[in-house]
Amino acid sequence: MMMFEYDKNIIVIDSGLMFPASDMHGIDYVIPDYQYLKDRIDQVKAIIITHGHEDHIGAIEHVVTDFPNVPVYATPLTCGLIEVKLRSAKLLDKVTINTVPTNGSFQVGPFKVEFFRMCHSIPDNVGVGITTPAGLVVHSGDFKLDQTPVDGKPSDFAKIAELGNRGVLALFSDSTNAETPGFTPSEREIEHALELVFRDAPGRVIVATFASLLSRVQQVANICEIYGRKMAVAGTSMVDNIKMAQKMGYLKIPDGMLVKLEDAIKMKPSDVTIMATGSQGEPSSVLTRMAKGRHPTLNVEIGDTIVMSANVIPGNEESIFRTVNRLFQCGANVVYPAIARVHVSGHACQEEQKLLINLIRPKFFIPVHGELRMLKAHSRLARDLGIPASNIFVGENGTPVEFQDGNARQFERLKGGWVFVDGRRVGDIGPVVIRDREMLSREGFIMQVIRRNNDGALSEDPEIITRGWVHMKDSQEFILQLAESVGKTLADVTAAISDDVVKTRATEALARLVSQETKRKPLIITVVA
Amino acid sequence: MMMFEYDKNIIVIDSGLMFPASDMHGIDYVIPDYQYLKDRIDQVKAIIITHGHEDHIGAIEHVVTDFPNVPVYATPLTCGLIEVKLRSAKLLDKVTINTVPTNGSFQVGPFKVEFFRMCHSIPDNVGVGITTPAGLVVHSGDFKLDQTPVDGKPSDFAKIAELGNRGVLALFSDSTNAETPGFTPSEREIEHALELVFRDAPGRVIVATFASLLSRVQQVANICEIYGRKMAVAGTSMVDNIKMAQKMGYLKIPDGMLVKLEDAIKMKPSDVTIMATGSQGEPSSVLTRMAKGRHPTLNVEIGDTIVMSANVIPGNEESIFRTVNRLFQCGANVVYPAIARVHVSGHACQEEQKLLINLIRPKFFIPVHGELRMLKAHSRLARDLGIPASNIFVGENGTPVEFQDGNARQFERLKGGWVFVDGRRVGDIGPVVIRDREMLSREGFIMQVIRRNNDGALSEDPEIITRGWVHMKDSQEFILQLAESVGKTLADVTAAISDDVVKTRATEALARLVSQETKRKPLIITVVA
Repeated sequence: MMMFEYDKNIIVIDSGLMFPASDMHGIDYVIPDYQYLKDRIDQVKAIIITHGHEDHIGAIEHVVTDFPNVPVYATPLTCGLIEVKLRSAKLLDKVTINTVPTNGSFQVGPFKVEFFRMCHSIPDNVGVGITTPAGLVVHSGDFKLDQTPVDGKPSDFAKIAELGNRGVLALFSDSTNAETPGFTPSEREIEHALELVFRDAPGRVIVATFASLLSRVQQVANICEIYGRKMAVAGTSMVDNIKMAQKMGYLKIPDGMLVKLEDAIKMKPSDVTIMATGSQGEPSSVLTRMAKGRHPTLNVEIGDTIVMSANVIPGNEESIFRTVNRLFQCGANVVYPAIARVHVSGHACQEEQKLLINLIRPKFFIPVHGELRMLKAHSRLARDLGIPASNIFVGENGTPVEFQDGNARQFERLKGGWVFVDGRRVGDIGPVVIRDREMLSREGFIMQVIRRNNDGALSEDPEIITRGWVHMKDSQEFILQLAESVGKTLADVTAAISDDVVKTRATEALARLVSQETKRKPLIITVVA
Repeated sequence: MMMFEYDKNIIVIDSGLMFPASDMHGIDYVIPDYQYLKDRIDQVKAIIITHGHEDHIGAIEHVVTDFPNVPVYATPLTCGLIEVKLRSAKLLDKVTINTVPTNGSFQVGPFKVEFFRMCHSIPDNVGVGITTPAGLVVHSGDFKLDQTPVDGKPSDFAKIAELGNRGVLALFSDSTNAETPGFTPSEREIEHALELVFRDAPGRVIVATFASLLSRVQQVANICEIYGRKMAVAGTSMVDNIKMAQKMGYLKIPDGMLVKLEDAIKMKPSDVTIMATGSQGEPSSVLTRMAKGRHPTLNVEIGDTIVMSANVIPGNEESIFRTVNRLFQCGANVVYPAIARVHVSGHACQEEQKLLINLIRPKFFIPVHGELRMLKAHSRLARDLGIPASNIFVGENGTPVEFQDGNARQFERLKGGWVFVDGRRVGDIGPVVIRDREMLSREGFIMQVIRRNNDGALSEDPEIITRGWVHMKDSQEFILQLAESVGKTLADVTAAISDDVVKTRATEALARLVSQETKRKPLIITVVA
């Protein structure tokens, strides 16, 4: 999410979600902290979405709920994907969605917004030129400069050059692959690799990818046509997206090729291809459940060829490769990017990033969309191209840059950061709960219940209940011994000693024993009943 | 760990540890499950270690404790590293360690064991030829075929060829990089990249690597000499290893170059290099503590150049890149393998793996040392070289292969797998505790204490204590409401109703309310006091 503000007019670019890092225990997903916008709710004039991937539309439910009167602007396919999402959240009637062609433009307050087509791994992806009273700024959106994209529609170089010729104050550009030299291979190259896989596959071919990677679905359909295979789709989000994209004309699948999953299972394996979710090893995805033998209808069968046709999202390496290993264990042949080009990145590498900078020739350069290390790498490229270091602003999320009279200045990062979504609640979980979850995950907890007589003495040894420290069932004797030891340290307790003191002494005694015996530090809670 | 067995004689090759996967919550490290050996303790005749990395010697404490009378055989540097480890565990006097030269041989029962030098990212690394009554088998050890290794001692091609000429029954070969085409670059190439880093560094250079990567220490010392820098070492394990390697002549550091860390901090930054642990983002390592501002003496300073000179161990990507980003935030310049060749793999790529197979020309091929996907990739290579699929055995840890009369047969995988080490205890934590920790990490727990009157009714609403579900302090009112609601569902309780029934009803009521209000599923424990 990014915002542009001028004279109490704010436009928002993109409303994505982030998948939780491995130390964000139990969090479903993460949305940006847009308290700054909530504090200026009347100033927010438009929500502009550059394309339909989750990291750009995944927070849309929350945003349209918080800004009910603000119109959304996006290209046709992006609108389609947003509508699928809002319909399932029962929010579709709450918001005005304006469809803008990929070369369209519109005015919002003082901003003239111009879309221009940029290639990415989804059709109808755009960059945005914004003419403001302070000058023209250009936001690349996610992009690669694919010369042979699957939909035959390359990036709009003419428009990019034209924007450059107008004189650009600042370029905000996608930094994802700023560490990688050269050019990103064309999506078209995947087709050759996939074709070899299909040619050699003795049985079913199962292709796992993102639910929104519609160009991959088109490519698989093209190859299914060559090899006379039917195609079935597993995974609700993918089924919904494919339906919508077909209806809108973004997917051209021959009549009769799509079959129902339950029918596909009964067909001759070599006649069938299944598109599925799960390319990131997500626990609830079709492929992961198949790999664990927990999918209701789909089992991995010997002779299956399973294609992981997606890049590795950083942090997902372990779960992806665990799934790959499990699928091999089940007897499938697994094809993944490390051994065949069945996926290429959707983002520009260094040579494309340089080309964009040289086409736009901005005065100021702000690398966006990437971890700090990627932004740093992108800023080094810009310096190599002659943009002075003083005209490059590297800032993490929440860092404002102000433009005035052709000058620019970066401010301190605003407070805030991420908002965690967990279950029904948004933002109620902060660092304390996460730290507790982290500690519980490493050490578990022990609870001891102490019951006192009328004369204040312990009526019995403490009752100890534990999870995540030692196995309660296997360690019964050991636990009883500990309880007895704690009991002994409290043998002198009388009615004169308060519950609080008993609690503290019992907790300290148990912690000491636990550390001595196991060198572990579970959370200890003592209750005096 | 691998074992060879003939007629009640067992020799063990390597005794490594595994770093815990991210779902092995709270586990310190993982050792192999060698119950099979414990059940045959009198048959174990030798423990042979191929080199001194943690994944080959990290379980040695446990192994020498369990097999106190079994001698260890290893090359000089490997013995040195084992001794450092056993000394700190106070086990050094409990075991016989036999030093064998890299081209040495020895007899153990029916086995004639011959070492041969193989390049790797540590000196004194060997492969092993074992002449058994069933035939000659060769184990590659970890290897790469580096033509210009840092210590100037390439792999012993002559011996490898000679073994091949004798006729090899089976080759067991390192599969780590079986997915990667071509040759692994020479360690020597790192020196060029490092030199450029040193040339351009305005202040201190901090090089993070593994404590046992002694060739990297040598390379950094070489460059320090060129640029007239002193070298300090941070991290106990690295300090111990360097001391030992210097004493044994494996590290040649000019007199006066090594300085104490406390002195280095006071010197002019451009005169200093610091070697540190933490290349994997390990929480307790020097570099991670520096990045978090939690190291007692070392702070990241603006002008520092920090080199991550190690490969990414799969699963560590997130913590490594988080450290890189944090170091950038602190104002350092960070150089890491994605942007400069400051590390190369220590393992052979496909062309080297093929060359080894062609030199050895084994009848049977068994890919080892790698995840299943790597073993599969290695087996495809062997097939490409003409080894029939029926002579290749792909098996995960614990899968026996039997050779008899020139034939071979693979058996079902033995029961067992990993043994978890957590704190003082080895193997007491199994799947149940791990599952509890996983659940606690995602949802936390709630404890409710119910106190009953003499007439059996609740004397007050349940007392609710929670961690990892909602923030107790911020949610006091909400928690009191829940307690009141649970209390109401138990309003009819009398002395006739047992504690167990009250417990069940209270737990069910609370679980229902928690799910309704938060859509979360914490562990709920009810205690009736």
